[in-house]
Amino acid sequence: MSELSLYLKSVAKQIDHMIDRYYVDKAGELNKASAHLLAAGGKRLRPAVVMLAADAVKPGSSDDIMQAALALEVTHTFTLIHDDIMDDDSLRRGVQTVHTKWDMPTGILAGDVLYSRAFEHISLVTAKDDAKVKAINMLARACADICEGQHMDMSFGHRDDVMEGEYLEMVKKKTGVLYAAAAGIGAVLAGGNGVQVKALYNFGLNTGIAFQIQDDLIDLLTPSEKSGKDQASDLREGKQTLIMIKAREKGLDLQKYRRELLKSDIDEAIRELTESGVIPEVKQMAADLVKDSNRHLGLLPESKERQLLMDIGEFFITRSY
Amino acid sequence: MSELSLYLKSVAKQIDHMIDRYYVDKAGELNKASAHLLAAGGKRLRPAVVMLAADAVKPGSSDDIMQAALALEVTHTFTLIHDDIMDDDSLRRGVQTVHTKWDMPTGILAGDVLYSRAFEHISLVTAKDDAKVKAINMLARACADICEGQHMDMSFGHRDDVMEGEYLEMVKKKTGVLYAAAAGIGAVLAGGNGVQVKALYNFGLNTGIAFQIQDDLIDLLTPSEKSGKDQASDLREGKQTLIMIKAREKGLDLQKYRRELLKSDIDEAIRELTESGVIPEVKQMAADLVKDSNRHLGLLPESKERQLLMDIGEFFITRSY
Repeated sequence: MSELSLYLKSVAKQIDHMIDRYYVDKAGELNKASAHLLAAGGKRLRPAVVMLAADAVKPGSSDDIMQAALALEVTHTFTLIHDDIMDDDSLRRGVQTVHTKWDMPTGILAGDVLYSRAFEHISLVTAKDDAKVKAINMLARACADICEGQHMDMSFGHRDDVMEGEYLEMVKKKTGVLYAAAAGIGAVLAGGNGVQVKALYNFGLNTGIAFQIQDDLIDLLTPSEKSGKDQASDLREGKQTLIMIKAREKGLDLQKYRRELLKSDIDEAIRELTESGVIPEVKQMAADLVKDSNRHLGLLPESKERQLLMDIGEFFITRSY
Repeated sequence: MSELSLYLKSVAKQIDHMIDRYYVDKAGELNKASAHLLAAGGKRLRPAVVMLAADAVKPGSSDDIMQAALALEVTHTFTLIHDDIMDDDSLRRGVQTVHTKWDMPTGILAGDVLYSRAFEHISLVTAKDDAKVKAINMLARACADICEGQHMDMSFGHRDDVMEGEYLEMVKKKTGVLYAAAAGIGAVLAGGNGVQVKALYNFGLNTGIAFQIQDDLIDLLTPSEKSGKDQASDLREGKQTLIMIKAREKGLDLQKYRRELLKSDIDEAIRELTESGVIPEVKQMAADLVKDSNRHLGLLPESKERQLLMDIGEFFITRSY
């Protein structure tokens, strides 16, 4: 097992413990609804980024700011609970979504509870007060951006003329800024200076965007047996991903794939999208983003944690599910 | 016009200006949806409490913390937007509710945007950082309580056996804690000591509960011509208010009023509830809460602002609409 895998496992264990302590088995139906998705597992990648950013700035500092690491997972979970209502999805992480298991009002409130808890967690870390205020400001701005990103994403559903720039703006807001905030918050709470905080913020932003682009590639390229999800669902639904947008720009007709697809149809689409250069270009964009994010990390001193952050970026764009 | 009326008018004007500056006429549909209810007016009572609490602790300090006053109005508005979705109400403050004018997803997101902006506003006030962290912690805890209160309120809808203690717990969370946070945040940002902050917090808590009890009395007692709302809608719907709970405890049968009511039916109910002692007892409870809140204010030095806070408590329980 790689060093990164081991590290991520240990972070997930710590975060799971904190979730047990702060959220699980609390009295009251609303508390149970708030804990439901949080306790359903997850890779806890954002907490890992908070901790690595902190330790990359000041070795050993992550111990003091575990509540901030938890805050990022709690924030992410709140957005998922509300997104599931908007998209009316019924399953997530192998469990029923909150509004399905309870009801829509409880789903809204469960998300709202977690939203406030995220800020409460950050207010309770052991760090300088000015750093805490900066971290809170960063989280608040990220949350507003995430809402904007989700709103853009939903509006794309009614359109077939989304441009590459709009797509990247949406992904930046919907996924990038929370990774950016994760790294920036870790850095600022560890006492990082302006240059360090900005470098880590930009690292998170770029890798977060690359993460989402890779998600779109996985949807198309990874067989269902491996991913556990429907292969090529974006293609079938005509979703405006970077792949679809680039294909349209190149004049490819993907409308013909908006129907039930056989494995052979999917293989045909992949061949077409590869030969036309779409898939290589999309892969290159993700790779360039990660390369650029490593350039930002170059502003930090060499350390095990800096290396692990680079490994996370690499992991984001090489994972196949 | 009373001194309090003049003061509240001037606060409302300042807050309206800030709302214009920070929220109105921003590009994008989600920003418009977020600004919609915020710009639809309102008495801006919570901002007034923030400012008076600050000035009662340190004269002139409210100028520096106007963003915190705005934060309380923004928080209140976010809860209204989400509540309107849960209750599927279509009108509020004379305008369409956000999810009615736009749609449910946009309503959720518009509320979520305001939620984050509230924390951002507090992070930007001119105050000591430790005070800002305390204020943020106070706001976060209030928000979690409000969700709990709204959840309790909804659960009461399916029951006819709510006890007085449960009702007061619900009202405390749904309405009391935000007034408590308003006063506490004003005090802490103005540099108040622990005793002062606690006194103002408790002042807000009690007057906030009294405010809600008065709302229930107004629903029953104020003719529609005056309130602009349906008179006795709680009675018709069998809502579990303090009035209904006390009536049940006294063995009164209010089930007979769960139908379309003539003016004469409402008068009959009011007579019955007055003669049995229910209405006098409920009025007394509200008055006692305000009296107790004034006792808390006794811990502060005498000042014009302290007097205005007392006037607000009195106003809460004497208003008839």
